[in-house]
Amino acid sequence: MDNFTFYSPTEFIFGKDTQKKTGETVKRFGGNKVLLVYGGSSAEKSGLIKEITDSLMSEGIEYTILKGIQPNPTDDRVYEGIAQATREGVTFILAVGGGSVIDTAKAIALGAVSTRDFWDFFCGKATPVAALPVGVVLTIPAAGSEASGNSVITKLAGMHKLSIRTNILRPRFAIMNPELTMTLPWFQTACGAVDMLCHIFERYFSNTPAQLVNGYSEAIMRDIMARALELKVNGNDYEARADIMWAGTLAHNGLCGVGKEEDWATHRIEHEVSALYNVTHGAGLACIAPAWLSFVSKKNPDMVWRFSINVMGVDPERLDTDQIIDKGIQLLKDFYHDLGLTTSLTELIGKTPDIDALVESLEGNMGKTLGFYVPLSMDDCREIYKLAL
Amino acid sequence: MDNFTFYSPTEFIFGKDTQKKTGETVKRFGGNKVLLVYGGSSAEKSGLIKEITDSLMSEGIEYTILKGIQPNPTDDRVYEGIAQATREGVTFILAVGGGSVIDTAKAIALGAVSTRDFWDFFCGKATPVAALPVGVVLTIPAAGSEASGNSVITKLAGMHKLSIRTNILRPRFAIMNPELTMTLPWFQTACGAVDMLCHIFERYFSNTPAQLVNGYSEAIMRDIMARALELKVNGNDYEARADIMWAGTLAHNGLCGVGKEEDWATHRIEHEVSALYNVTHGAGLACIAPAWLSFVSKKNPDMVWRFSINVMGVDPERLDTDQIIDKGIQLLKDFYHDLGLTTSLTELIGKTPDIDALVESLEGNMGKTLGFYVPLSMDDCREIYKLAL
Repeated sequence: MDNFTFYSPTEFIFGKDTQKKTGETVKRFGGNKVLLVYGGSSAEKSGLIKEITDSLMSEGIEYTILKGIQPNPTDDRVYEGIAQATREGVTFILAVGGGSVIDTAKAIALGAVSTRDFWDFFCGKATPVAALPVGVVLTIPAAGSEASGNSVITKLAGMHKLSIRTNILRPRFAIMNPELTMTLPWFQTACGAVDMLCHIFERYFSNTPAQLVNGYSEAIMRDIMARALELKVNGNDYEARADIMWAGTLAHNGLCGVGKEEDWATHRIEHEVSALYNVTHGAGLACIAPAWLSFVSKKNPDMVWRFSINVMGVDPERLDTDQIIDKGIQLLKDFYHDLGLTTSLTELIGKTPDIDALVESLEGNMGKTLGFYVPLSMDDCREIYKLAL
Repeated sequence: MDNFTFYSPTEFIFGKDTQKKTGETVKRFGGNKVLLVYGGSSAEKSGLIKEITDSLMSEGIEYTILKGIQPNPTDDRVYEGIAQATREGVTFILAVGGGSVIDTAKAIALGAVSTRDFWDFFCGKATPVAALPVGVVLTIPAAGSEASGNSVITKLAGMHKLSIRTNILRPRFAIMNPELTMTLPWFQTACGAVDMLCHIFERYFSNTPAQLVNGYSEAIMRDIMARALELKVNGNDYEARADIMWAGTLAHNGLCGVGKEEDWATHRIEHEVSALYNVTHGAGLACIAPAWLSFVSKKNPDMVWRFSINVMGVDPERLDTDQIIDKGIQLLKDFYHDLGLTTSLTELIGKTPDIDALVESLEGNMGKTLGFYVPLSMDDCREIYKLAL
């Protein structure tokens, strides 16, 4: 186990009707003028936005709205939010939604208290030192952004998708009512399960010894898979919704990565796909993750072998290492297919992707190598894109 | 899963040489005058106290010392610390040690900012609203106090052992270097493993459905047992020390109890034993926990059955429920014996304990019933003490 710092100060307020506590919670964390950020019209139609604005008003908290945040959120809406927050004297950013909304809220929180272009923090030109406080009402369990200090934004000029990670951006609170996720389209539930699973992959596939962390990470991964399949049958199963929601948080608050060298190659290889072809991140991961596993297992089989047995449930008896790994990866693909997702990039985007363009952009964003479980050259990444076709 | 709030804001600074960061960390959390609380002379002899005071001085932080805190800490030292902290104008309490030291530090932190008797907060006469900030350098992984808002103190007059739980008392930081635990006497390492395991028992044995939480709790319990047995063979195994230390934190920061009705009968039944006979808490738990399991499994077998299979590794094939449970409890006792601990109260205290006195004190502290997995009457508790003889 490597040295580490674990810091997850977010207050998680979890369960039925918890969105009704939004106003009192914002107040408790010092907010008096809120920028309320959300996505499409579903949160309005369901009555959630009214419930939240009522809750804010009942505590005497003013608010101004920035809505229509899209998946794979872009810098133009961040700049718009920063201008709005500054103009209106906002003291608190409240995100109601999933990862795209929360990531936008975080980027605004960063830009609103700095004289620098917020993008400087994303591309490493500047180190963040302050941000407005951010709170979350989570409606899509997937990105884990409610529990992380991460934000991922795409710059429209050049379609560069970059991420930042800083404790300053960890939300003060996250209100998580699993009931709010019951009306999600199945595709979003499925992609969310894939995404949270992959957040654990990025930490699990590591060369650092970590018996305890690997053990509980495996338990969480097994539960995500079991619960996702249950939700396919009955999307109104509260216990399954609750497990998936809490698992999404644990997958990304750092717990599964303590003391380990994390990888993150799969996410970065996928980011190029979702940036260039605007596919849902989780759907892209369902194509990239098995391809990445196949590639790295040839060079470093240990953790893929362990994953196949302990997570995918391969019975190792009378199988050699290669067979165990092949079966494990096949079972993971089967799981994605059972969720109704494809593991083929070609099928996902409806045409053969331009691998040259993907690799070129990846190299532009990431340099010559990425990942740690197996450090990958750009030729290796090209190979992984090909395996995912 | 029940509604819950999970809030664990402590910054965990984990790994080799981390105690050297004490001064800079106290400073970062706003401390400029420290009450340094520790236990026996081992921390002085090892050079740890000098390392810490050097680290404080190098940051220009003044300190005053309260030392000699004993296991099963008592109110007299708390009153002494409150007087000292007030007299010296202390702004930060730094605990260097295990649960007894940390619990004393927390009680001082509470009393130092209140005009009320600190004991009023422990016996429920008053609700805490403020405390001085507390930081920890952990040297004994066991109580989990570095990650909790709990403190357990014994009032010398009447030997009442009472606990408090409030987020106000969660430490700001916990510095955790597994190397510092390598010189612990084996008995303390063993009792620590028993204690942390029981912190998970109190949350695991519950009637609330909790598939995800149960899954990762089981993984942590299995690891604690495996690592404790490894340490019996080689106390200098860094990976095993690190796992045990981190597991002790996760066992008590609330993670294993989210959304569940927790039990805590075992701890309360044991507290009477350690208060009246001054035995080490973990050693008392090794007697009470199997007795409690035997008693409750007759009335509510489900989770004891699950525990026997998933944690103790009982192969359920060709066994009925009672046999599975009996075997599970026997394997737990075997584990305690393997650690070199007794599961007999009579053997532990060297004579037959006064069960009437234990039950009378328990009723005085807790009322007529306790626990939730199986609500226990005082007659039931008497039975459990008898089963533990």
